[in-house]
Amino acid sequence: MVNQSHPLDDVFHALSDPTRRAVVGRLLKGAAPVSRLAEPFDMGLPAFMKHLSVLETSGLIRTEKRGRVRTCHIEAARLAAAEDWLAEQRAEWQGRSDRLAEFVESQNRKEPKA
Amino acid sequence: MVNQSHPLDDVFHALSDPTRRAVVGRLLKGAAPVSRLAEPFDMGLPAFMKHLSVLETSGLIRTEKRGRVRTCHIEAARLAAAEDWLAEQRAEWQGRSDRLAEFVESQNRKEPKA
Repeated sequence: MVNQSHPLDDVFHALSDPTRRAVVGRLLKGAAPVSRLAEPFDMGLPAFMKHLSVLETSGLIRTEKRGRVRTCHIEAARLAAAEDWLAEQRAEWQGRSDRLAEFVESQNRKEPKA
Repeated sequence: MVNQSHPLDDVFHALSDPTRRAVVGRLLKGAAPVSRLAEPFDMGLPAFMKHLSVLETSGLIRTEKRGRVRTCHIEAARLAAAEDWLAEQRAEWQGRSDRLAEFVESQNRKEPKA
């Protein structure tokens, strides 16, 4: 498990925390400076900056600094990558459930109740 | 950050590892005993069991033991909860992008190019 990490590793890790999920939700409404983003959270700025760092490493957000203001932006494509992976899994699952339902149905047709 | 954890915390944490994602993908094709599940992975059984434990804690899988065989099953509803959360975020983002496009269009109508 010490091999190269997959981008999804970092994305799902970033999403495994409620503060980081809330930041993602907020940034989907529009870019925001760090100071405004931090306001709703009951934690010190250093702790909050660590969360932003995890989000930035995952590629879910990018930040830019102009003068003294650092602004955060969502990177929706990376969020879509996580959703795509889950959608693929669901398709696999649904395909299997459909095949199972077809099989049960075909068995029912073969063996009508006496 | 020491408050109660949300079920999504555990689900996204469970999905942040390639071995655990592979196990989820495998179990979506059908239930399997631990020994067969572990085969494709180049790791000892104790390390593999830790991954299963993380998956079980997250609610993504359940295991049942009959005699000496422990069988793992997927819990697709928990996977769907993660997908639902991401779909909600995408809807928010798309709504915003649509509103932005409408705004730009309305501005273009107001100020035709000279």
